[in-house]
Amino acid sequence: MKRITTFTLAAVLSTTCAGGIALADGHAEKAMAAAIEARKHQMQLNGYSMGILGAMAKGDVAFDAATATAAASNLAATAKLDRSILWLDGTIQGEVPNTRAKAEIWSDAAGFEKSATDLETAADALVAAAGTDLAALQEAMKAAGASCGACHEKYRGPRN
Amino acid sequence: MKRITTFTLAAVLSTTCAGGIALADGHAEKAMAAAIEARKHQMQLNGYSMGILGAMAKGDVAFDAATATAAASNLAATAKLDRSILWLDGTIQGEVPNTRAKAEIWSDAAGFEKSATDLETAADALVAAAGTDLAALQEAMKAAGASCGACHEKYRGPRN
Repeated sequence: MKRITTFTLAAVLSTTCAGGIALADGHAEKAMAAAIEARKHQMQLNGYSMGILGAMAKGDVAFDAATATAAASNLAATAKLDRSILWLDGTIQGEVPNTRAKAEIWSDAAGFEKSATDLETAADALVAAAGTDLAALQEAMKAAGASCGACHEKYRGPRN
Repeated sequence: MKRITTFTLAAVLSTTCAGGIALADGHAEKAMAAAIEARKHQMQLNGYSMGILGAMAKGDVAFDAATATAAASNLAATAKLDRSILWLDGTIQGEVPNTRAKAEIWSDAAGFEKSATDLETAADALVAAAGTDLAALQEAMKAAGASCGACHEKYRGPRN
């Protein structure tokens, strides 16, 4: 994962702080809070797509290729958002407010990257499966669901 | 824009309603509420990316190609999310809660689609510009900002 320091993004996001003042603590906090909110929006979109696909895979509703393809395509897109501006250094549960991100996201960056790319791969497989049939969708959902769960297990802390 | 009826998606999203009951009003309301929330998450992500790019374009912070490219790439991805599962029929301001979506999104579907694809095009141009230099970014931001404003002007109602 490309790493962009909090300092760099704090500078970028400091525009609402008037006066051209050099970076102060408030700017870094603002940048971190914005990044935390942004990745929550990403997770919510991932969940919306997975919810649609999961309902079909479980047989709660009829398989519909067009809807499934739309949901899988959106999941693939949101899973692949550039993480460098979402997972800023220091945006760790217990150190800043409103996040459940564990320190292991940064201390085990390679592992986190692997988990994230597992979801990307699973989402691409879902796109192909969604255009095929229900059995393919059900099979592809196993890997997608497992990747969500594995990442949350390793890298998401308890509810605040 | 591919149209998926509220009925279809209500079925898909009805899984948290236990008992296998056929679609009732509550299911359609649940599906519409979920879609409204999902598109708000999309807009928030669009805004996060635009905020990073806008700060650089205005000269409030130094141009940084890596950060600009990350933001532009994310904007391009979230701008292109499949709209069929986000803009469900009937999710109109004044008819359902928590949305500012004007009826014109559906009554002028071709115009809305044009506005949405204008942003997609502008975001793709931003990706190219972000890897070039500040002048290119500033130029590309004009079209991107204009597409945001034009769509909000025509298709977003007043604050609730």
